[in-house]
Amino acid sequence: MSLPALLPESLIQQLSERFGKRFSTAEAVRAHHGHDESHFPDALPDGVVWPHSTAEVVEVVNLCRSHQVPLIPFGAGSSLEGHILATRGGLTLDMSEMNQVLAIHNEDMDAVVQPGVTRKTLNAALHGSGLFFPIDPGADASLGGMASTRASGTNAVRYGTMRENVLALEVVLADGRVIRTGGRARKSSAGYDLTRLFVGAEGTLGVITEVTVRLHPLPEAVSSATCSFPDVASAVQTVIQTIQLGVPVARIELLDALTVHAVNRYSKTSLPESPMLFFEFHGSPNGVEEQARTVQEIAADNGGEGFEWATRPEDRSRLWQARHDVLYASLALQPGSRGISTDVCVPISRLAEAIAGAQAAIAESGLTAPVVGHVGDGNFHVVILTTPDDPAQVHAAEELGRRIVECALALDGTCTGEHGIGIGKCDFLLAEHGEGVAVMAALKAALDPLNLMNPGKVLRTREKS
Amino acid sequence: MSLPALLPESLIQQLSERFGKRFSTAEAVRAHHGHDESHFPDALPDGVVWPHSTAEVVEVVNLCRSHQVPLIPFGAGSSLEGHILATRGGLTLDMSEMNQVLAIHNEDMDAVVQPGVTRKTLNAALHGSGLFFPIDPGADASLGGMASTRASGTNAVRYGTMRENVLALEVVLADGRVIRTGGRARKSSAGYDLTRLFVGAEGTLGVITEVTVRLHPLPEAVSSATCSFPDVASAVQTVIQTIQLGVPVARIELLDALTVHAVNRYSKTSLPESPMLFFEFHGSPNGVEEQARTVQEIAADNGGEGFEWATRPEDRSRLWQARHDVLYASLALQPGSRGISTDVCVPISRLAEAIAGAQAAIAESGLTAPVVGHVGDGNFHVVILTTPDDPAQVHAAEELGRRIVECALALDGTCTGEHGIGIGKCDFLLAEHGEGVAVMAALKAALDPLNLMNPGKVLRTREKS
Repeated sequence: MSLPALLPESLIQQLSERFGKRFSTAEAVRAHHGHDESHFPDALPDGVVWPHSTAEVVEVVNLCRSHQVPLIPFGAGSSLEGHILATRGGLTLDMSEMNQVLAIHNEDMDAVVQPGVTRKTLNAALHGSGLFFPIDPGADASLGGMASTRASGTNAVRYGTMRENVLALEVVLADGRVIRTGGRARKSSAGYDLTRLFVGAEGTLGVITEVTVRLHPLPEAVSSATCSFPDVASAVQTVIQTIQLGVPVARIELLDALTVHAVNRYSKTSLPESPMLFFEFHGSPNGVEEQARTVQEIAADNGGEGFEWATRPEDRSRLWQARHDVLYASLALQPGSRGISTDVCVPISRLAEAIAGAQAAIAESGLTAPVVGHVGDGNFHVVILTTPDDPAQVHAAEELGRRIVECALALDGTCTGEHGIGIGKCDFLLAEHGEGVAVMAALKAALDPLNLMNPGKVLRTREKS
Repeated sequence: MSLPALLPESLIQQLSERFGKRFSTAEAVRAHHGHDESHFPDALPDGVVWPHSTAEVVEVVNLCRSHQVPLIPFGAGSSLEGHILATRGGLTLDMSEMNQVLAIHNEDMDAVVQPGVTRKTLNAALHGSGLFFPIDPGADASLGGMASTRASGTNAVRYGTMRENVLALEVVLADGRVIRTGGRARKSSAGYDLTRLFVGAEGTLGVITEVTVRLHPLPEAVSSATCSFPDVASAVQTVIQTIQLGVPVARIELLDALTVHAVNRYSKTSLPESPMLFFEFHGSPNGVEEQARTVQEIAADNGGEGFEWATRPEDRSRLWQARHDVLYASLALQPGSRGISTDVCVPISRLAEAIAGAQAAIAESGLTAPVVGHVGDGNFHVVILTTPDDPAQVHAAEELGRRIVECALALDGTCTGEHGIGIGKCDFLLAEHGEGVAVMAALKAALDPLNLMNPGKVLRTREKS
């Protein structure tokens, strides 16, 4: 990591005059913005500014460009791949005060929000509308950040990811121009898909200043189910058959045997310590019952045991409790540890193989690493437990992560299903996309020729000279 | 239209030597490739080549580049906006002989095809698998062409458009490089979304040489329904409430009163000549019955009359016959006419207003123009009947089309829901996307600096000097 260059004095003066207390170079403020939820070393920006409007973002972008200072958009700080680390110094744009829900269109089932609105804030604003925003990456992330990392989570098997749920964006480009990438129509064939270009660009092509998202009807009824399996392969086979039969399952989560063991220890439960599936079904009261019964039959055909299902909220919560406890239960396996999470995603037919490959690599590594998966999408996380002040263990964890990615790529998968590239996966991106990375770099150069927009993320671009 | 420059003699010689009978400059061949289903004047290419492999496409791209000759990819010739017209001359790449279904992955519910495979060919190949490819733009278009125009059709309300259903592409770029835009994983956050960049690019950024598409389970049961309404607004309100209630309807089509009148005349039926909705439901036997009953109640609340529904294939066909007859019934309203179709799409809350605006403009124009809509998406077509050899009428039709687009844009809509920009909507694209079009042009310049890939489509780029 290069030492951050300090902000030019003239820029500090201009930002102070323009933004007053909404601009800061205080150590504590910079420290707060210098780390995310990843294991990468802190990298503090040289200053932080809190814009309140698109026009203010334009001003900041123009100021930074004229001083050749990097700009890093910051949402909730919950990214997992170092997206918001100021590895080349520069100014952080903290979007958290652009937090207005601008419009909710009930009939069109969409909402227009500023990028600092978090998913929970949006869902609170939707209370009573009969609608909800389903994408749930775990953390209460900002919608601008979720768009930037193409986030998803447990609901994606039914409702899609941010790729499918962002209708349009407003973006401030590196040269200060403001564009709207689309309107609110549900579909359009009008030109290149600029919306999808900025979804997943991790702030490297521009600053998102407004997000229009799709909403979905709150299901009339919900049912949940859990089931244990003799091995991962039979659990995965159950998932494949469920989806092939057209059961519109809302969530399917997998815990491996080690994770179930961790939950038992942590929550004093006595679940069978073998792979477990967690289902959630959304629909009409008859529909969710029918879905649960269909899945029960499929699970039984695949050796599933102890199938339980429920529709009352308190019973559903009890069934899913183990899934909710995963993170803390896992960390408790190795007191004082933190988790470094892999994020590979493979075609579902290769999922059992990918998990078996990961488990073999875990065993060889000597590390403790529970596996939990958004199994309907073929996406799973290996939560590698590491003691932060043990560099050898962190190194071993990174090496294990590399092996898991290599295995997934060999199975026609991707190195990241939902966390993004950030600073740690640039080499995996190259292994996965090959010549495509050169195309990405050409797009980046066309839109950000000075390489000031979140430089060094996604693409290992040159340091500015 | 500028007169096409002939191919350089050296290029003709090289193509003849390399491709033999798979290269032609014959008038009849060029004429066949010089028109699509649009009303635009024919524009013949200077030659046509039929590649059989990605490597051959690379050879052609490299030859054309070294001679600075434009290249136009051609699928089934069913485009509606002049996408395949050789308005600047050049060589047409007819992809129809790259027509192999390369792989069907049942467990992953995806298929890998060459770009010349049509949607009906793919569905025939899927026979017996329990899976189908749902996107249905009417014509038996090629999948490469459908990806290029971001096509959709009647099923999009349930299954999405090509945007959602293309998993990955192989593309030959203007400089001869070959990239794969992604793998077969259901989701990925690995870098910029190159797949979505090429979906809808209308061949202006590269030549698609392979398409990986999502497949869907054939529904266990299907039910259909029709219902008449006193006016368009009550029909649209029925659609809005149906979707808000989470009924997973597979198709919802609207015919306006004039269209129903046309069908009655053409098919000797006696349907009430007021707006009509056509529904199709996919699911379990209980599910589709429940869906139909729910919609029946919603329709009744909105003044719907004569609700009929059916599950037996022959009864469903009878109910939907009027929808299937629309095109020929409409053309029969004005013998000798052809239809010029608009394609606007608006947020569904604005749909009744958009259709009312269109109908007012139609009335003022004095033209005959039935309205038919993929109403679940807010997308509708005004089929403007024109006599091709009456330039004044064609001009009036274009003027009417312009007014309908202006009305849709004022309602936060798009000028094209599924047909694309081609050569006729470049000005509408500018009105809709403003500064965004400059971004599109920057992307085009980054990937095709010589402007040889289907020049003049989507963007009104400079003629090469």
